[in-house]
Amino acid sequence: MAEKRGTLAVLTGGGDCPGLNAVIRAVVKTAVTHGYEIYGIRNGFHGLIQDDMKKMSMADVSGILPRGGTVLGTTNRDNPFHYAAGEDAAGNVIYEDRRDDVVRNLNAHGIECLIVIGGDGSLKIGYDLHRFCGVNVVGVPKTIDNDLPGTERTFGFDTAMAMATEALDRLHTTAESHHRVMVLEVMGRYAGWIALHSGLAGGADVILIPEIPYRIESVIEKVKARQAQGKQFSIIVVAEGSKPVGGKMTVARLVKNSFEQVRLGGVGNKLADEIEAKTGIEARCTILGYLQRGGSPTAFDRVLSTRYGSAAVEACLAGAYNVMVALSSGEIVRIPIEEVAGKPHQVPLDSDLIRAGRNLGISFGD
Amino acid sequence: MAEKRGTLAVLTGGGDCPGLNAVIRAVVKTAVTHGYEIYGIRNGFHGLIQDDMKKMSMADVSGILPRGGTVLGTTNRDNPFHYAAGEDAAGNVIYEDRRDDVVRNLNAHGIECLIVIGGDGSLKIGYDLHRFCGVNVVGVPKTIDNDLPGTERTFGFDTAMAMATEALDRLHTTAESHHRVMVLEVMGRYAGWIALHSGLAGGADVILIPEIPYRIESVIEKVKARQAQGKQFSIIVVAEGSKPVGGKMTVARLVKNSFEQVRLGGVGNKLADEIEAKTGIEARCTILGYLQRGGSPTAFDRVLSTRYGSAAVEACLAGAYNVMVALSSGEIVRIPIEEVAGKPHQVPLDSDLIRAGRNLGISFGD
Amino acid sequence: MAEKRGTLAVLTGGGDCPGLNAVIRAVVKTAVTHGYEIYGIRNGFHGLIQDDMKKMSMADVSGILPRGGTVLGTTNRDNPFHYAAGEDAAGNVIYEDRRDDVVRNLNAHGIECLIVIGGDGSLKIGYDLHRFCGVNVVGVPKTIDNDLPGTERTFGFDTAMAMATEALDRLHTTAESHHRVMVLEVMGRYAGWIALHSGLAGGADVILIPEIPYRIESVIEKVKARQAQGKQFSIIVVAEGSKPVGGKMTVARLVKNSFEQVRLGGVGNKLADEIEAKTGIEARCTILGYLQRGGSPTAFDRVLSTRYGSAAVEACLAGAYNVMVALSSGEIVRIPIEEVAGKPHQVPLDSDLIRAGRNLGISFGD
Amino acid sequence: MAEKRGTLAVLTGGGDCPGLNAVIRAVVKTAVTHGYEIYGIRNGFHGLIQDDMKKMSMADVSGILPRGGTVLGTTNRDNPFHYAAGEDAAGNVIYEDRRDDVVRNLNAHGIECLIVIGGDGSLKIGYDLHRFCGVNVVGVPKTIDNDLPGTERTFGFDTAMAMATEALDRLHTTAESHHRVMVLEVMGRYAGWIALHSGLAGGADVILIPEIPYRIESVIEKVKARQAQGKQFSIIVVAEGSKPVGGKMTVARLVKNSFEQVRLGGVGNKLADEIEAKTGIEARCTILGYLQRGGSPTAFDRVLSTRYGSAAVEACLAGAYNVMVALSSGEIVRIPIEEVAGKPHQVPLDSDLIRAGRNLGISFGD
Repeated sequence: MAEKRGTLAVLTGGGDCPGLNAVIRAVVKTAVTHGYEIYGIRNGFHGLIQDDMKKMSMADVSGILPRGGTVLGTTNRDNPFHYAAGEDAAGNVIYEDRRDDVVRNLNAHGIECLIVIGGDGSLKIGYDLHRFCGVNVVGVPKTIDNDLPGTERTFGFDTAMAMATEALDRLHTTAESHHRVMVLEVMGRYAGWIALHSGLAGGADVILIPEIPYRIESVIEKVKARQAQGKQFSIIVVAEGSKPVGGKMTVARLVKNSFEQVRLGGVGNKLADEIEAKTGIEARCTILGYLQRGGSPTAFDRVLSTRYGSAAVEACLAGAYNVMVALSSGEIVRIPIEEVAGKPHQVPLDSDLIRAGRNLGISFGD
Repeated sequence: MAEKRGTLAVLTGGGDCPGLNAVIRAVVKTAVTHGYEIYGIRNGFHGLIQDDMKKMSMADVSGILPRGGTVLGTTNRDNPFHYAAGEDAAGNVIYEDRRDDVVRNLNAHGIECLIVIGGDGSLKIGYDLHRFCGVNVVGVPKTIDNDLPGTERTFGFDTAMAMATEALDRLHTTAESHHRVMVLEVMGRYAGWIALHSGLAGGADVILIPEIPYRIESVIEKVKARQAQGKQFSIIVVAEGSKPVGGKMTVARLVKNSFEQVRLGGVGNKLADEIEAKTGIEARCTILGYLQRGGSPTAFDRVLSTRYGSAAVEACLAGAYNVMVALSSGEIVRIPIEEVAGKPHQVPLDSDLIRAGRNLGISFGD
Repeated sequence: MAEKRGTLAVLTGGGDCPGLNAVIRAVVKTAVTHGYEIYGIRNGFHGLIQDDMKKMSMADVSGILPRGGTVLGTTNRDNPFHYAAGEDAAGNVIYEDRRDDVVRNLNAHGIECLIVIGGDGSLKIGYDLHRFCGVNVVGVPKTIDNDLPGTERTFGFDTAMAMATEALDRLHTTAESHHRVMVLEVMGRYAGWIALHSGLAGGADVILIPEIPYRIESVIEKVKARQAQGKQFSIIVVAEGSKPVGGKMTVARLVKNSFEQVRLGGVGNKLADEIEAKTGIEARCTILGYLQRGGSPTAFDRVLSTRYGSAAVEACLAGAYNVMVALSSGEIVRIPIEEVAGKPHQVPLDSDLIRAGRNLGISFGD
Repeated sequence: MAEKRGTLAVLTGGGDCPGLNAVIRAVVKTAVTHGYEIYGIRNGFHGLIQDDMKKMSMADVSGILPRGGTVLGTTNRDNPFHYAAGEDAAGNVIYEDRRDDVVRNLNAHGIECLIVIGGDGSLKIGYDLHRFCGVNVVGVPKTIDNDLPGTERTFGFDTAMAMATEALDRLHTTAESHHRVMVLEVMGRYAGWIALHSGLAGGADVILIPEIPYRIESVIEKVKARQAQGKQFSIIVVAEGSKPVGGKMTVARLVKNSFEQVRLGGVGNKLADEIEAKTGIEARCTILGYLQRGGSPTAFDRVLSTRYGSAAVEACLAGAYNVMVALSSGEIVRIPIEEVAGKPHQVPLDSDLIRAGRNLGISFGD
């Protein structure tokens, strides 16, 4: 089809995210269209260390555009610079530096550039492979949280936010019929994008995000104010990383005691308990969890993923290595990959989204 | 429009359920079409005790067909025969018998028949009002669990099952990409219809239902057998009422200890913990919870709800009181309301659904 | 796994239908579970005549449950008893009897029973293969129209009806905002099930079905009556096979004239034109067409398809050939395959569905 | 709540568009929050001419966020500068200049600023009211086509594009199972945004847009090239405004002849006919039509609509009249309203979206 060029490789790292397959498909198709050979690496950096990769053709990516997940597999554990190789006699994990395996495997297949589709963890490993090992890298910004620096939008976010909105729509009717407070806990450890967007889209009354520490009194005041207006129900969406003023994150965790395992509720359950205790209105929490990560990507995410995958290979064609493709003013651009090591992209406090929320009477708990 | 007839009333009781509004709409439209006056009672039996009702017209039900929830409001607490009227000095709840209020309020408005849209709790109250107070009652079978005796299908079940299937679709891609065991806990305290249908529709590998006590060894064997075939992931759907052989239900509950509130995991979390401990494969649990109860009803449920609402008023027209409308062989029929006091409608162990599951290689944990 | 049994084959015939892949998956999995070899025949009876088939394994059906279409391919043209083999010199189609090829190919592979997933056309071919050639056949009832005799429900119908309902929901808001009459033409040449169910589920004002010839005056009267009540819009759903009293079907067709091709509108466009001409209200028609046939099956259809596929192989296991699996009172049963040659399953005029429609004020145009 | 301010008014004009209600809700809530009185004008400029408006409160916009359509009603016909007032004796429409009515009605209610939610037609009327009559105007950019100048995204586009993508998903399975060419005709008279985005998201093989005149030979070549690769099916998405090189638009229209009304196919039907004639592969066209305009807005569109509505009132608060709110680099900005009179926002030929399409092997027919 096209003149013969060199060889590329692609991997997916970190948590599941809708659109991974769409990016892989665009990478493979663009690569083949332009005469590249392209390797798919299995299970993220693990496969790169273990030399678990295979050449991909158009047929390998046929039909995967609308599917969630990644045909390459992924893991959010393996780091070539700090690889969990086993356990010692005492049961402690032994970590090894396996960067040499990575470089050897890439060279053995003649791979000119490694395309890393991942979040901040995977992209930073990519950046380190560039810095410390001279590997050519192109990054594609993946995270449902939308908290990567350097891009207006990561792929996967629109789908996660749409799912959270659908959940709010469902909870709304139950809240209204039953005169209840319904709390929805969504993802977002450092940034509240999912909570903010889905809260606006789903008609929430209170939106709590990590960027704005909340006062429980303020939340309760809002619930009571609605009650005073004859609205016997309230909808609250809370990012998992939200915390009270002066407090810290309440992450769900498992504690083993002498009798049985107990699960400490995260911020959502804690909020529901506090609201019910202080208002007497029944309050229930739903944790959306993995439902945000899977499933077919929205049309928006399929387009964005396709553009990112295409642009990643175009960067290789241009010899523009060690960049991340990004969305800026509606256009796909390239930014230096070191920017991913910057601070997470949080919701600016003067964002028009927050102002819109306040204009509509939404409480941010402050 | 039609000749003047008497007066009817309708209420919705118990938990939220998709299709409630569609039934109310059909009841009101059918009643008005045939010349009845029709009262809508607010918040279930609470409104009947408190005389909180209003006459409904066509305009009151305009546009509500696709909406979740109930425009009449509902509660799953108030029982006229055992009404929580307040607390005594020691903080104990004082219960009162308020059946006389019910009868007086119905008579005051000249209501010939009370249409009760509810699950087994509400329908049994309806049956008791008939038995003990001579009130004319027509029941409409509502429950997302599909466990009411006397009918092939309750309204709300199809929507709940479809939502659970959508959740399984979403979890599937993450399980496959991450080589994980994903457990989905769905509703069904006494009957496993939601788990069974969504498990078949969502391609589950293991389905656990209350009708078939499970052995954890059997579940683990299935997960390992898949692993041995190169399938690094498994999907498990479990009804909240499932229990191990010889064991009892593990319902999520809240325990207050001296330090903080802790939440005991239900059967889904327990399963995920056991599987991870015994197989070394990461296992995660998602609890679908209220997402099954809300939202717009499926087309199937809108049709069934509309037929039930229409048939309930037709029963009144025919003077056929003290019945429940039901689905039988695809037709709407009337059955004596006392049948709702029978045993819950569980999945028969010789059901072709279970046989189909076994034919497809699904484990039921036995 | 299981003891070795004989050999089966499966094909899909006729138009596309959501759930085909789910049936194929259940057939293959059940067959393999019970020790059968199973052939998948490509492109319906065409592949059977041409000996285009391959053995199927569990891996061939992995992941296809939620997907529309058929991995086996289909065609709605080839009939072994009347096979279009080519054209003569004058351009006329030459038909041949190819039943001997069918029998020879089945025997060559040692196929004991042919599972035919199809509508009335394909199932009648199956019946003829049984009658005239002694082939063992098991039928699975497929059609989005739900018009096959002998079963309460065909697979594919629920998905088609749900799609039509979604379309009505969408048209509803535009009709209301724009004060328009919106006509939706859905499939159903001989039976109005899709129009009837989606019309009830989508809140239609007028439902026209082949079983009830319509009077245009009656339709217009309904539109004007709504206008008189202040409702400036109306929603009409019409099955493609609907016809006026004393008239005949107006099927869309292509006419070539001397200047350009012209497309004659079907019943939906005709209705919209007549209504606009006689009421002065803008009327628009949308033809749903192929959107009803494709896409992921609903959870309901996935369950029904899975049960049918499982039951088809169970019939083979029992030596119960020359039957069609069917749904009766919520159970899967077997009926003699000759019943498919009976009259189409139309909406009974005394159906409670039609009565419900009239109770809600819906006009059926009579 | 807030100090008393002046009075605003809001209207919706032109075709239906998902998100209209979300904008209205945000306008009303923001206005009330800031102490404004706000009038809702019925049925676009018609209501403004006829003084058909009413004061709106929080209660009037409760629950409308997820609903398609507009609670204010709309029309795409009435222009105050060229108002169809009736017909003369010969049946010709008489147009009148009614700008004085507009000004008088606005003044009578003390309305400081008119918020116009509309497409290019309505916004130009707004601009003219400002230019010629001194009315203060703030515009909100509405069109499913995304072709308004001055903004990266109009609300409604994401929903329309998502619906077109869903349609492509559905057609895909049928095309593949039946070895057919499936053509989907979508909206876009001057700009191909819907076709381009949905074509990328839905895995189309050919995308035809008004910006790139097509050669039918090129389209046929693509279909045949796929056939040569063993792909017996193709998916084509075509914007209604697409035209052949040197040709002109083929818009569907109604022609009355002596026998019956005939409907000339638009570009989609024409394409399908040509492809079938020249390749011998069955080709079918589906016209998406009004299904793109209605229904609940996507989460993306609900957020964008809410931001636009909030920002429109913020512009009034700032006294920044005669602007349109717009999306730029992910932020909401204000641009002079005269810019809407500029050229439509078409797909730039060097857009990375088109390049991505070509990289993936999609034909644009050129």
